Amino acid sequence: VNKPTPKMCPGWTEFREFHTPTGGLFFRTGRVLCRRTSDFQEIEVFDHDFFGKVLFLDGLVQTTERDEFYYHEMLVHPALACHPKPDRVLIIGGGDGGALKQVLAHPVKHVTLVEIDPQVIEVGREFFPWLKACLKDKRADLVVADGNEFLTKSQRLFDVILVDSSDPVGPSAVLHRKGFFGNMKKRLNRGGIAACQSGSLLLHASTFRVKSRFLKGIFRRAHFYTGPVPTYPGGLWVYNFLSDGADPLDIKRKPPAGLGYYTPDVHRAAFALPANLKKLIG
Amino acid sequence: VNKPTPKMCPGWTEFREFHTPTGGLFFRTGRVLCRRTSDFQEIEVFDHDFFGKVLFLDGLVQTTERDEFYYHEMLVHPALACHPKPDRVLIIGGGDGGALKQVLAHPVKHVTLVEIDPQVIEVGREFFPWLKACLKDKRADLVVADGNEFLTKSQRLFDVILVDSSDPVGPSAVLHRKGFFGNMKKRLNRGGIAACQSGSLLLHASTFRVKSRFLKGIFRRAHFYTGPVPTYPGGLWVYNFLSDGADPLDIKRKPPAGLGYYTPDVHRAAFALPANLKKLIG
Repeated sequence: VNKPTPKMCPGWTEFREFHTPTGGLFFRTGRVLCRRTSDFQEIEVFDHDFFGKVLFLDGLVQTTERDEFYYHEMLVHPALACHPKPDRVLIIGGGDGGALKQVLAHPVKHVTLVEIDPQVIEVGREFFPWLKACLKDKRADLVVADGNEFLTKSQRLFDVILVDSSDPVGPSAVLHRKGFFGNMKKRLNRGGIAACQSGSLLLHASTFRVKSRFLKGIFRRAHFYTGPVPTYPGGLWVYNFLSDGADPLDIKRKPPAGLGYYTPDVHRAAFALPANLKKLIG
Repeated sequence: VNKPTPKMCPGWTEFREFHTPTGGLFFRTGRVLCRRTSDFQEIEVFDHDFFGKVLFLDGLVQTTERDEFYYHEMLVHPALACHPKPDRVLIIGGGDGGALKQVLAHPVKHVTLVEIDPQVIEVGREFFPWLKACLKDKRADLVVADGNEFLTKSQRLFDVILVDSSDPVGPSAVLHRKGFFGNMKKRLNRGGIAACQSGSLLLHASTFRVKSRFLKGIFRRAHFYTGPVPTYPGGLWVYNFLSDGADPLDIKRKPPAGLGYYTPDVHRAAFALPANLKKLIG
């Protein structure tokens, strides 16, 4: 038959991500690697037959070894490809290191990763080998801090700022509000570009109209773009490309070799918005 | 918190689609509308808080009221938009009527829907109002038959053939084999176009290499394209655009009004293939 034969063994755990109160994704596994509660969230790591190591934060899939590249490539490469010389890059969030890995594949001079939860970094170092490798890179600098506070206190300027936050509801909501984007803009060099994850087209559609309106008030260019992420709710993810100067379709630099999803054609295609999203953001 | 509060009530059922033996999607509901076993498959319909009415065939989501348009628009409109005068259209499969509805939104003269399982049509008529409405359209003609047999026995020619089959594993596997596509080509008018669902990029990647090779042997133009479908496994769906003449980027006709996903820009963007798919199909 068409349907895979379900597998469940004694002692196995079923992890669930509720996309709505009545449905979502489930993962069965016998290999729970880590379960701890930090000051900020519940952190869980397990090893899954199909997706490899999976990181859950507060019951939401953040990263799986098998499909993290869809998300991280589309968060990182559009902004970096459109900047002629992205020497200094800031990542807010992204303690799992997936975005950091993609940034370090470019000839950048310095990357600052600002993660609020030191336990996410610890867990990442232990279970996600790429994070360990990236943090050894001399260009990478880790700061444990609240992203919004870092922006208001820091005097440094960046060529590219990437916001690898949680969803626009719950504890990360501040990273999706107007004030945050205003603070971010002040830390961008002239010609700088910001890229931010903006949530699920299926679940967070109601946030896009408001966001579009205030982003257009802050940046001369405030674009939405999309990309698929198999284990994120609804499958299609929404991102923002923000700049006072750069054109998101004017690709200035080649992508790193060996990517799984991103190509320059895919980059341009990502800005052709679904009819429903186009209508929402006017 | 970020996570929606799970809801489960006494007497509720949990429907699961296993994408792999150890994971997939789940839906909780108190409104199971239909459960029957036809000569071909298990047919289930339930009403879900978020997705509305959902049709399961053999434990796989076929259609949900909330997101069916993603799939049906991308199966139907690229082919119809690239044909200068799609008078006669054939749909193989698609007993839920979602593709039929999209085709009838074009100024076509005649649509033949060939569905193997009469019980799917019956269930569709009862629970999916669009199917009832579409079957009343004088341009629509329903044939209960095996799609491949229909192609070998019919003498009729079509301008556009759409294959709305199940996945490339299991009972629909024949609709993904070389012989089927050869039979299909014989039923296409000169300048005709076929569009077929080809499966999930995440789950069926191993089938694309072989399919690409044999399709290139049958059609002068054998393209792959993609589109998101929230409730289909992996979120990103793969389709084929097949023709001896038509260029998939040469859009000749405007889409119907009021679509949810498809736009001419989205159409062109869908042919910008993910790096991993591009590599697979060479």
